[in-house]
Amino acid sequence: MNKQIEVVLTPALLPLYQVKGKTVVVIDVLRATSSMCVAFKTGVNKILPVSTPEECSLFKDFDFLCAAERNAVKLPGFDMGNSPFEFQNPLIKDRNIAFTTTNGTKAIKQSKELGADKIVAGSFLNLEVLCNWLMHQPNDIILLCAGWKDKVNMEDTLFAGAVIAQLKNNVTLHCDSGLMAEQLYKTMQHDLEDYVRKSSHAQRFKALHAAEDDVHFCLHLNTAPVLPIMQGEYLVSQQTQTV
Amino acid sequence: MNKQIEVVLTPALLPLYQVKGKTVVVIDVLRATSSMCVAFKTGVNKILPVSTPEECSLFKDFDFLCAAERNAVKLPGFDMGNSPFEFQNPLIKDRNIAFTTTNGTKAIKQSKELGADKIVAGSFLNLEVLCNWLMHQPNDIILLCAGWKDKVNMEDTLFAGAVIAQLKNNVTLHCDSGLMAEQLYKTMQHDLEDYVRKSSHAQRFKALHAAEDDVHFCLHLNTAPVLPIMQGEYLVSQQTQTV
Repeated sequence: MNKQIEVVLTPALLPLYQVKGKTVVVIDVLRATSSMCVAFKTGVNKILPVSTPEECSLFKDFDFLCAAERNAVKLPGFDMGNSPFEFQNPLIKDRNIAFTTTNGTKAIKQSKELGADKIVAGSFLNLEVLCNWLMHQPNDIILLCAGWKDKVNMEDTLFAGAVIAQLKNNVTLHCDSGLMAEQLYKTMQHDLEDYVRKSSHAQRFKALHAAEDDVHFCLHLNTAPVLPIMQGEYLVSQQTQTV
Repeated sequence: MNKQIEVVLTPALLPLYQVKGKTVVVIDVLRATSSMCVAFKTGVNKILPVSTPEECSLFKDFDFLCAAERNAVKLPGFDMGNSPFEFQNPLIKDRNIAFTTTNGTKAIKQSKELGADKIVAGSFLNLEVLCNWLMHQPNDIILLCAGWKDKVNMEDTLFAGAVIAQLKNNVTLHCDSGLMAEQLYKTMQHDLEDYVRKSSHAQRFKALHAAEDDVHFCLHLNTAPVLPIMQGEYLVSQQTQTV
């Protein structure tokens, strides 16, 4: 029998689902999981997702780089915020990073608390590697959109739809959120950037006069073909056959 | 300035929104709000939404008809369940109905508790009357999808999209759920029934060998041109210019 796949449109809805024993793909396209993919492509050693900026800054003492974002803005006193461009810097190669963001790192920690068997990070930048890996691992799958402060967002929903469109023949889908995400992706895939620029998060970037280039960057398919996966408390880069 | 409109994809997310002072459109296409529209078209006097079947059956003593559904099935011992066909019976004319359903009546009560100024029931059966009324009332608007046990569903999302498509030039939309609902409706509006039959709720009906005709019935536009609106604890039929 095919593996089941479900889409959870915001972390606020995750407690309604059976998470234990499943594989959870955490999706925060703008920008946490995109930046994580870029970081591993650049050669980061491991990433520690943490809940709060205070907790994050503790790790300076242990030779971690510390990255912290809230409300789409890099927090003062940290090495990095949440822009994928910051994670292209070759100086971060082989370093460890403690990372806290408004939505993405919270979704990872929540999946762990609810007993997920495996947790991986998904973004357009690693779509193909992710889908190949999902197809060959044995668990039922939850695509968890990190959303924005527990509200549903467009870009994460579209990415969930992209994953379903790719896996369609290899998974069983009994989930309205998944059907709708797939339909939206199929309709909008050729105008993805124009469509996402209408989203509340892209508008938020615009209002901040920041991070507009990030939208363009984060919608490029397969430019960071890595698979960030949780091992214990850390995200590491899974060695996959296709990388 | 235009009124703001937001879409809340499930009642579980409603506490994230400012509800106080707004107009909430409760949407439970399959089937509570469709049946409410049919009931008022048939000439029901008023409908009392109640939380539990136990509370509902109390009202038998006060000459109410009592309608109760759970998990898509009419509960034993009640006058009616939740099928719109039951609410076409001319014997219900001028009667009062106490009504409890899995999702729809709960969403109405929650909107009231969170301080909505006006609460109305929306379905494809009263789309045009509803949109005309929404355009002329002064409040910001929340389209609240009743969903299924706090999960997101397809048919309520599509209806929210239909309302946005109609009101588009008269409202301000800064809400990804609304943008996505509108896009889905625009894409699927000519295949609405085929698409909704793929939904988890239609599949649930199929598994019960029941209520399949209800899907067809509930997707007909403007066949029950009434506006169910909360007055105190009751839904009544608002007299509108277009009825």
